[in-house]
Amino acid sequence: MSKIAPQIPKGFRDILPSQMVIRQQIVDTIRRVFELFGFEPIETPALEYASILEGKYGEEGEKLIYKFEDRGGRQVALRYDLTIPLSRVTAMYPSLPKPLKCYHIAPVWRADKPQKGRFREFWQCDADIVGTTSMLADAEVIASIYHVLKALNFKQFTIRINNRKLLNGIAQASGIEGSDIPQLLRIIDKREQKGVEGIKEEMREKGFKENSSNKILELLSTSNGNSIDLSTIKNRFSDTDLVREGVKELEEIFIYLASMGVDTQCYRFDFSLARGLDYYTGPIFETTVEEPKIGSITGGGRYDTLIGMFSDSELPATGSSFGLERIITVMEELKLTPTQGTIAQILVTLFSPELYNDSLKIATELRSHGLSTEVYLKHDNLKKQFSYASIKGIPLVIIIGPDEQKQHTVMVRTMTKGTQTTVAVNELIDIVRRELSSSCSMRDL
Amino acid sequence: MSKIAPQIPKGFRDILPSQMVIRQQIVDTIRRVFELFGFEPIETPALEYASILEGKYGEEGEKLIYKFEDRGGRQVALRYDLTIPLSRVTAMYPSLPKPLKCYHIAPVWRADKPQKGRFREFWQCDADIVGTTSMLADAEVIASIYHVLKALNFKQFTIRINNRKLLNGIAQASGIEGSDIPQLLRIIDKREQKGVEGIKEEMREKGFKENSSNKILELLSTSNGNSIDLSTIKNRFSDTDLVREGVKELEEIFIYLASMGVDTQCYRFDFSLARGLDYYTGPIFETTVEEPKIGSITGGGRYDTLIGMFSDSELPATGSSFGLERIITVMEELKLTPTQGTIAQILVTLFSPELYNDSLKIATELRSHGLSTEVYLKHDNLKKQFSYASIKGIPLVIIIGPDEQKQHTVMVRTMTKGTQTTVAVNELIDIVRRELSSSCSMRDL
Repeated sequence: MSKIAPQIPKGFRDILPSQMVIRQQIVDTIRRVFELFGFEPIETPALEYASILEGKYGEEGEKLIYKFEDRGGRQVALRYDLTIPLSRVTAMYPSLPKPLKCYHIAPVWRADKPQKGRFREFWQCDADIVGTTSMLADAEVIASIYHVLKALNFKQFTIRINNRKLLNGIAQASGIEGSDIPQLLRIIDKREQKGVEGIKEEMREKGFKENSSNKILELLSTSNGNSIDLSTIKNRFSDTDLVREGVKELEEIFIYLASMGVDTQCYRFDFSLARGLDYYTGPIFETTVEEPKIGSITGGGRYDTLIGMFSDSELPATGSSFGLERIITVMEELKLTPTQGTIAQILVTLFSPELYNDSLKIATELRSHGLSTEVYLKHDNLKKQFSYASIKGIPLVIIIGPDEQKQHTVMVRTMTKGTQTTVAVNELIDIVRRELSSSCSMRDL
Repeated sequence: MSKIAPQIPKGFRDILPSQMVIRQQIVDTIRRVFELFGFEPIETPALEYASILEGKYGEEGEKLIYKFEDRGGRQVALRYDLTIPLSRVTAMYPSLPKPLKCYHIAPVWRADKPQKGRFREFWQCDADIVGTTSMLADAEVIASIYHVLKALNFKQFTIRINNRKLLNGIAQASGIEGSDIPQLLRIIDKREQKGVEGIKEEMREKGFKENSSNKILELLSTSNGNSIDLSTIKNRFSDTDLVREGVKELEEIFIYLASMGVDTQCYRFDFSLARGLDYYTGPIFETTVEEPKIGSITGGGRYDTLIGMFSDSELPATGSSFGLERIITVMEELKLTPTQGTIAQILVTLFSPELYNDSLKIATELRSHGLSTEVYLKHDNLKKQFSYASIKGIPLVIIIGPDEQKQHTVMVRTMTKGTQTTVAVNELIDIVRRELSSSCSMRDL
């Protein structure tokens, strides 16, 4: 039979064990923090009816949906994000207890042009709260972002917070209305990349009146490089109901964040944050890091009307999404991840066929004490077996030769130090535990 | 805008939080045992080129592959199992250290006719060892199956073990050759459902010679209802090289299993086990339970030539797959899973807006001690908040009213007992821990 070339489609990846171990540690940490906050796991199918996804992601997003026809001639599509499936779920099962706090960690698919760091299959980690308009929910989502990043050892990050009500109110007060508002928001959202001049240019191109543009641009260009602060907006637009409401919501969130132990250095109001998607209705939030320049690592906000698209009853909701690939990229660049990932803490070597069963017994004993143990599964010389442990980064190696078998001992080799000690079998567990905690094992991280 | 009906494609499911919590506990247990054995995680894309999957699953399997054309006009397909992607990976990255021990827990897709307990998207949990012909590897895979099921509290299960070499050898010795052998194996594989008479019938239909059929049927029909034992086969076919080799491999495995603490009650040689797929080359294994009648819950074996389909160099391999849905079905039927799944251990209630921040501070304190804590995020009366805790199965509820705030105390309500105690804030963590360990919390399971 002719060989089939082992290839995968462009924009897709295999995640090999050394990468996957690190990735899984990160996912476990995110999950642990979500669960500390009482978020519960949920899962939706990879395939949805295309009609569920269509019309939700804007013109550009729409083109990226992986759509196809199933055998029954129905249009189906691969999940594009986790927010629309969750909205569909909450509409479909109205009896789910509310407030519903849930998280979803899963791949999504977008037929985007592959480029460095951008894949067609990537993972999102979403946490959402459905069924309450309380700003406590938004504060909890923001606090969970903070605690996830702290748990991942991020030293510097900024959760930028704004409110669509405030943006909409200011747009209206500046004479911008109707479908011009979402267009304005999409332009403002590019401030980071385009700068104030770029935004000015784009507003002119898109036909915004100069008078309106100037009002918006003035708010975006303050002396310190940051956009205008919340109290200035509060005073200047005290006559606009929507702005007042938006400001009040943000003030409420900031008070809650203080009670939730969120460091004030790690979040701020940012008038220039607009978020691209149309469905946000209230507070919006996004996290950026100064280094590396990579865009946002989390994004989210309140979407009180989205679920109503699938249901007769409206269900308010808020939530945020972590981009796993970007989180990993940042952690790698900032050296926040271990350079080598391995699962096994101990390699039990094989000396000779007559002694295989002695090696297996020792491995079984170690495993029964919760120690991850690999048995080298090939007849090879000890040097090769050591080299395997060294390539994999397994910290301890155990050798059972004829002498050890006779004397009820084993030899324990600490790979980092290159030392070997003879240990009585009945003392093995204690000694292994001691050696592992002193040697630099992944498990300690 | 008109409403979009919230539906999902036939054969697909949402997994809601109460189910998902249980599911995740099971997956975590499987993963923990795999890692104790030193298996490392790996991940492959959901989409593969169709040519990678085609021609691997037999005529019937082939029809069930979810295939479609991507935007570039290439035939792609959703992953059908995890063995072919792993084989493709190991061929594609020849520098991966060997022996490669890895596990993969992920959904697969088959366009099968949906029926009770059979879905078009379901999860497999695979553990594989690539790069060694040693029977130690097969024994490790079998031992990991045993330890996973033990860790999941299975009381009764049988890992049935056979060897394709032995089957092929006996077929040849019975005058069956060429493409008749895989056909014979597929017929034998249905022994459980069809009985010996059914097999006799099918062999006649398919044109097997009566003389050959009788030889095979005699081996399948022994007085005790089980098929023939290994030593009888060993003696009877001592002239057939392939049988001798197959028997020797199995004997070797059985010796290793004893050293690995695998209870002899939980596995046995079974001549009637054949496995459906063509690619097995050596030992094969499958786990069944007596109750409920559900078919096999694990299946696997050695596939020494499969990876060679993608590569110029052959890479021997062995592994096994757990069917997550079947495992869960069995655990539910046998009441091995908790009836209610919840994440939060504590619900902190909200008394009145002036006291929200006190509730948030207490929740933050509890979370900082690793206790999963939900804050009720809506302005509601306490009765509704208690009822939420009760519906969700959250064991402890904390109340902070004006008196408690003044006196630096909180009220702790144990939901199962219906008791309430006033507790000083500085003693809260200890008391909560004590209450949780005495009340029936999911976390203890």
